[in-house]
Amino acid sequence: MAGNTIGELFRLTSFGESHGAAIGGVVDGCPAGLELDVAEVRTELDRRRPGSTPLGTARNEADQVEWLSGVFEGKTLGTPIAFLIRNSDAKGSDYDALKDVYRPGHADRTWEEKYGLRDHRGGGRSSARTTAACVVAGAIARQLLAREGVKVSAGVTSVGMELAERAMDAMDWEGVWRNDVRSADPGAVARMTALIEQVRSEGDSIGGIVSCLVRGLPPGLGEPVFDKLDADLAKAMLSINAVKGFQIGMGFTAAAMRGSEHNQAVQGGVLGGISSGEQMIFDVAFKPPATIAQAQATVDRGGKAVTLEVKGRHDPCVVPRAVPIVEAMACLVIADHWLRQRSARL
Amino acid sequence: MAGNTIGELFRLTSFGESHGAAIGGVVDGCPAGLELDVAEVRTELDRRRPGSTPLGTARNEADQVEWLSGVFEGKTLGTPIAFLIRNSDAKGSDYDALKDVYRPGHADRTWEEKYGLRDHRGGGRSSARTTAACVVAGAIARQLLAREGVKVSAGVTSVGMELAERAMDAMDWEGVWRNDVRSADPGAVARMTALIEQVRSEGDSIGGIVSCLVRGLPPGLGEPVFDKLDADLAKAMLSINAVKGFQIGMGFTAAAMRGSEHNQAVQGGVLGGISSGEQMIFDVAFKPPATIAQAQATVDRGGKAVTLEVKGRHDPCVVPRAVPIVEAMACLVIADHWLRQRSARL
Amino acid sequence: MAGNTIGELFRLTSFGESHGAAIGGVVDGCPAGLELDVAEVRTELDRRRPGSTPLGTARNEADQVEWLSGVFEGKTLGTPIAFLIRNSDAKGSDYDALKDVYRPGHADRTWEEKYGLRDHRGGGRSSARTTAACVVAGAIARQLLAREGVKVSAGVTSVGMELAERAMDAMDWEGVWRNDVRSADPGAVARMTALIEQVRSEGDSIGGIVSCLVRGLPPGLGEPVFDKLDADLAKAMLSINAVKGFQIGMGFTAAAMRGSEHNQAVQGGVLGGISSGEQMIFDVAFKPPATIAQAQATVDRGGKAVTLEVKGRHDPCVVPRAVPIVEAMACLVIADHWLRQRSARL
Amino acid sequence: MAGNTIGELFRLTSFGESHGAAIGGVVDGCPAGLELDVAEVRTELDRRRPGSTPLGTARNEADQVEWLSGVFEGKTLGTPIAFLIRNSDAKGSDYDALKDVYRPGHADRTWEEKYGLRDHRGGGRSSARTTAACVVAGAIARQLLAREGVKVSAGVTSVGMELAERAMDAMDWEGVWRNDVRSADPGAVARMTALIEQVRSEGDSIGGIVSCLVRGLPPGLGEPVFDKLDADLAKAMLSINAVKGFQIGMGFTAAAMRGSEHNQAVQGGVLGGISSGEQMIFDVAFKPPATIAQAQATVDRGGKAVTLEVKGRHDPCVVPRAVPIVEAMACLVIADHWLRQRSARL
Repeated sequence: MAGNTIGELFRLTSFGESHGAAIGGVVDGCPAGLELDVAEVRTELDRRRPGSTPLGTARNEADQVEWLSGVFEGKTLGTPIAFLIRNSDAKGSDYDALKDVYRPGHADRTWEEKYGLRDHRGGGRSSARTTAACVVAGAIARQLLAREGVKVSAGVTSVGMELAERAMDAMDWEGVWRNDVRSADPGAVARMTALIEQVRSEGDSIGGIVSCLVRGLPPGLGEPVFDKLDADLAKAMLSINAVKGFQIGMGFTAAAMRGSEHNQAVQGGVLGGISSGEQMIFDVAFKPPATIAQAQATVDRGGKAVTLEVKGRHDPCVVPRAVPIVEAMACLVIADHWLRQRSARL
Repeated sequence: MAGNTIGELFRLTSFGESHGAAIGGVVDGCPAGLELDVAEVRTELDRRRPGSTPLGTARNEADQVEWLSGVFEGKTLGTPIAFLIRNSDAKGSDYDALKDVYRPGHADRTWEEKYGLRDHRGGGRSSARTTAACVVAGAIARQLLAREGVKVSAGVTSVGMELAERAMDAMDWEGVWRNDVRSADPGAVARMTALIEQVRSEGDSIGGIVSCLVRGLPPGLGEPVFDKLDADLAKAMLSINAVKGFQIGMGFTAAAMRGSEHNQAVQGGVLGGISSGEQMIFDVAFKPPATIAQAQATVDRGGKAVTLEVKGRHDPCVVPRAVPIVEAMACLVIADHWLRQRSARL
Repeated sequence: MAGNTIGELFRLTSFGESHGAAIGGVVDGCPAGLELDVAEVRTELDRRRPGSTPLGTARNEADQVEWLSGVFEGKTLGTPIAFLIRNSDAKGSDYDALKDVYRPGHADRTWEEKYGLRDHRGGGRSSARTTAACVVAGAIARQLLAREGVKVSAGVTSVGMELAERAMDAMDWEGVWRNDVRSADPGAVARMTALIEQVRSEGDSIGGIVSCLVRGLPPGLGEPVFDKLDADLAKAMLSINAVKGFQIGMGFTAAAMRGSEHNQAVQGGVLGGISSGEQMIFDVAFKPPATIAQAQATVDRGGKAVTLEVKGRHDPCVVPRAVPIVEAMACLVIADHWLRQRSARL
Repeated sequence: MAGNTIGELFRLTSFGESHGAAIGGVVDGCPAGLELDVAEVRTELDRRRPGSTPLGTARNEADQVEWLSGVFEGKTLGTPIAFLIRNSDAKGSDYDALKDVYRPGHADRTWEEKYGLRDHRGGGRSSARTTAACVVAGAIARQLLAREGVKVSAGVTSVGMELAERAMDAMDWEGVWRNDVRSADPGAVARMTALIEQVRSEGDSIGGIVSCLVRGLPPGLGEPVFDKLDADLAKAMLSINAVKGFQIGMGFTAAAMRGSEHNQAVQGGVLGGISSGEQMIFDVAFKPPATIAQAQATVDRGGKAVTLEVKGRHDPCVVPRAVPIVEAMACLVIADHWLRQRSARL
């Protein structure tokens, strides 16, 4: 209710501030009897970790998952799976300068308007660090889905104006984790990488798009009116920090098409909100990070105009590290609808 | 849970098939004491009605709202507000040909995969007719928000490649209902209208974009992690039939921008998922209607390839009639978060 | 959220005031493909109807169910099943005297404290008439459960100090509907009937207990911590007007027992919140109706002490008519947990 | 959904098995700005602790609360408050004998029927140890309510046939924590204590009743149809291990009363499901613990009859240690409805 839970039957409740004691989550509703491979969870989490790619921030978060409950002798019990990740690399003092200043393009001010107070250190709960809990939960969901043959793959398809050129079903999905920019189009990697490095050298940042392909999705998933599969995916993706847009199938391009043309095009794997059994394809647009190395005009808590120069270590482009998050959120949504479908028929 | 309810505190449960006895809904959680202007609800509903614009289908749905509960002596009681709209213009026989054939680009097949059976008449529950319940509920939400000074305005900003050219805050929002295409840019009306008429004459259809501007939104609305204001809007918009994309602020354009540039651009009124107190701006992409007058290749229930020619009366372009639906869904989401914000602080 | 919905997967949203246009409900989550016998629903509803037993009120409510959606060619579609019952016998004028007076033992005053206004006619939404929607929804749930061999039977086991004497598994459950007091113990019928008639002749009222036996319940139903099967039953029963207590198995008697003794006794069919596969047995205590024919001291809206003599037609004892409501609420809870159990394991 | 969450706006998600790494919870929806007194939370938790009274088990659980999130500089942030309690005194080997045997009167068998597997050590998640998370969350809720003047007090009112004799509003509520049996009736303490000690010496166990008085409750709390205040209390109480019954006001006694008499009696502080502003009074019946020192007949996983003698350290009577749990659950329910009432009116 207070916005820290996602899913109906496969459900994650997330907690934690970036510079508090720990972040973590409780996964409730994972069916009993799943053999949980915690090493695989660790692999997923490492992909999100700051420092996992040289194109990201220089911060290094160890991100050790501590499992608290719900797993016994390697299998899920059907009870809540709670886990935490301690906040070890918490240089709170980096953030003292931000106590009374609102960073432009960040949630500092809106947060304070909402709650009347905030943990100003590193964004507190509005920090992208909270997505680590999503990645852990998504990795559990992925293992559930893998048994059913569902395979979720994401990759970077644009950085600024540097675009991937391959079609979604011609991408090299296995190659995503072998390049720093996390693209499934080998031909675009060098261009994208060069752009991020150039932007970084200028103290600036750049946006990008992560695209996702889901194979093996059974037909019939998704509730038909308000909890459509693509509607729930849209919500899950917009829940990721810095996301500004979602589209499925031809998306915004469809708005410029004729029916005779669109009926022949990729539908995106969802019709009327329900999976068709075809490959599902969607795109997620990320804005450029608001925190840049250049001095920026902003206001302080008293409303006075000030100039802000942020010293921290930040990402010039979030899309490489967003790839595992997009996958994780997709896994959470699909696992939830997969369980919900169990109640659809006699 | 089964996907027919939206909202947490201000909540709509929708029901009804397009060719069953009635469609309708139950609005639960509307605070007691609101003076409900049912004539205004009727005005909203008329704007969605087939036949409301000559650019839409020739079908004519009377759409009389019957109020069943929750209102006493003109005021909301705090109890559920139930309403129904009878399905009067139900030419079920129009649809006999569709009993054993799946229309391409429609939910016919996915629906049957989900439930094992379906009401084939006019799409049944997957019909856009169900959005009438959203419009009624949204009209109640709008009256709640109007007391707080919140004003939600939508209009068509593209039809195919015919685009509105004015900036969102320079549109003529009051003029939307005075032109058939429902655009707030008077200069685009003739171009958009001509395109729709041309497409119709060719037996084809066309997509488009509806954009929405929310003024007077107080800061602090939206839950910070999973129920972000823009995430809930994305979900609500993707719940509308034929929607394929959602973006807020610069949206997909932001993915091509640099931070130094984007920080100066329109943020869209939401930061970190929480309203900033600025104008909120978002866009919704609609695909071209799949049902066109041309013969199309498809399959029947037995999997056999057949040619389908649909005789019914259909929209060449849904965006003009989608405008009130976008507004209604936005009102539902904002009213819900407005109530949720009441619990955020001591 | 606003308290008009019960159930997670099999879910009823109820609406309506006793003297508004209609009462009704929306059942969402009933699996597709159930052949719905509407005549049986009608039979259930008739059992709750005022006038169904000469021991109840003389009011006569026709209670015709109008089905609005969710059923096609005799089968459930998997979509919301909406229904309504018009309020035909609404002698609103009977209640004019109650506009500014709070009936003792009724929700008149608390309702007004909550919402700031109320529909004073016949209790409005706090009227027991709203339970008719529960009976309709419960009858649908019962048909779902019947396919699984689950059989829910309730009967009156006490009226005042007149008690049933048979053990629960020795009752004549089929005989309940053949006596006016709705008892499954033929030997208690005359005593209970005589007591109710005596109380009525004195212008007074009397309390009683309804007990329920569930046979054929599969093991494993119920969630283990907060949504225990008996916890959800307790909540459902306390939702019925005039209920003041719930107990399962030995209930309050267990509080006076030793473990060595209790371990041998009837456990009630639930252990640790989960059904054991044994017969489930629980009891529901109803207070005597607050509205009696005698003059009573109360206060008006201004806080002034007044004497109230209620002229309406009321029940001297609610338990005979409560029997189908107890059964219906039990069916709703069990059907919900039966669906929830589908997600418990791989 | 999977039964580990309670509350709508003030919401606890609980996790943990008794002999896993930790138990704990996430409190979501606590308003921002509450000064949280963690020492008071510790005091509450100590009252539930095994070993807190010589009348309970000899097990000694240290129960250190580790706070993970949601509190900053002593105040709640409005974000999830996560906490954990490590399972330090986990003599798992005590339970080896129970791996393949079902204890009579316990959830061992039903649990395995539900999930297909279980953590057999100490009851796993079905252990009463999980109520420690409720006590922590309830202590937070209590601090929220204290600011509004709401005071929740519980005490033992019966052990077997030894009953408290004072009226609820004449009890010595402050004295509860000064006697080992946790009774608010000083005259009953010696009798109750003697009975528990006698039962223990005989290797047996005994049931009892905890009663609760809520003072300062504002009128208007509770949702009128399904989420009645007393219905939610009933559910919360039945969620506590070993509870078999709940009653409010005169409860089961009311079933034997006449209206003319009951209208004059204590109503229990709730009318039509909504708090009246009067003192709220309810009772909770606990069965005698099933685990006793005597040999008992049971079955093993193969269905074979075996004799079981449990060696562990167990409570002869749970009611003394249940008192803080009853208070905690009541605080959770009331805090939730207090927040919900914020949305009831304009």
